[in-house]
Amino acid sequence: MGLQVQNREEIAATIIAMEKAALDQWGNGNPDGFLDISAPDVVYFDPFVEKRLDGIDQLRALYDSIRGQVHTDRYELLNPHVQATDAMAVLTFNYEGYVNETVYKWNCTEVYRREETGEWRIVQTHWSPVRPQLK
Amino acid sequence: MGLQVQNREEIAATIIAMEKAALDQWGNGNPDGFLDISAPDVVYFDPFVEKRLDGIDQLRALYDSIRGQVHTDRYELLNPHVQATDAMAVLTFNYEGYVNETVYKWNCTEVYRREETGEWRIVQTHWSPVRPQLK
Repeated sequence: MGLQVQNREEIAATIIAMEKAALDQWGNGNPDGFLDISAPDVVYFDPFVEKRLDGIDQLRALYDSIRGQVHTDRYELLNPHVQATDAMAVLTFNYEGYVNETVYKWNCTEVYRREETGEWRIVQTHWSPVRPQLK
Repeated sequence: MGLQVQNREEIAATIIAMEKAALDQWGNGNPDGFLDISAPDVVYFDPFVEKRLDGIDQLRALYDSIRGQVHTDRYELLNPHVQATDAMAVLTFNYEGYVNETVYKWNCTEVYRREETGEWRIVQTHWSPVRPQLK
């Protein structure tokens, strides 16, 4: 609607930069980086929730419950890949978070949607552990 | 490109029906339902792969390795939700698969893209266990 269409490379670069900025804050216990770029209708999965969270209020409640408790010495965002259309894009990557001598490996899918303002917002987040050692 | 734009309800109904048809085959050990509706550039996460699978050839290799080995007595696709734009849509749901007396609970995110043919194809699949009991 009058917004300049971005090419695929621009979209990928924009979205990966947004994700890294949010992850930088996340690794210091601050979930606001993700909350600030999530849409009102965001949905969310992680291994600790019994069912999908629906909407920013549910996500904010979860994040507020662990605010200040996450600390990561450093992380690697591995092999990020963006599949984009003009109005929606999927970012997938493997994540490795280092805490002391331990590495935690995750799969992540983020879906971003381009809003009427032209800004990209997360509408779906899915985190899962890589090859969990199940009981 | 001359293709009729579908409204949001039509997109949701189309995609959920496609997913259920593929899951029906999956529960009988047949992965072709999913392979037939996955795009060449599909990416894939599940708890058993060390890193993201990239492309239909990698996905086919995985599915062929378990062909005929999956049996589900019945399943429930719980609370399916579709967030759609004209060309891309995210389907999220919780899945419960019943085998004998045991229920297996999963989170699932599917991203569908509308191809130039007008058909929807999966470009991203992410399965993860609900609240895995980690060692």
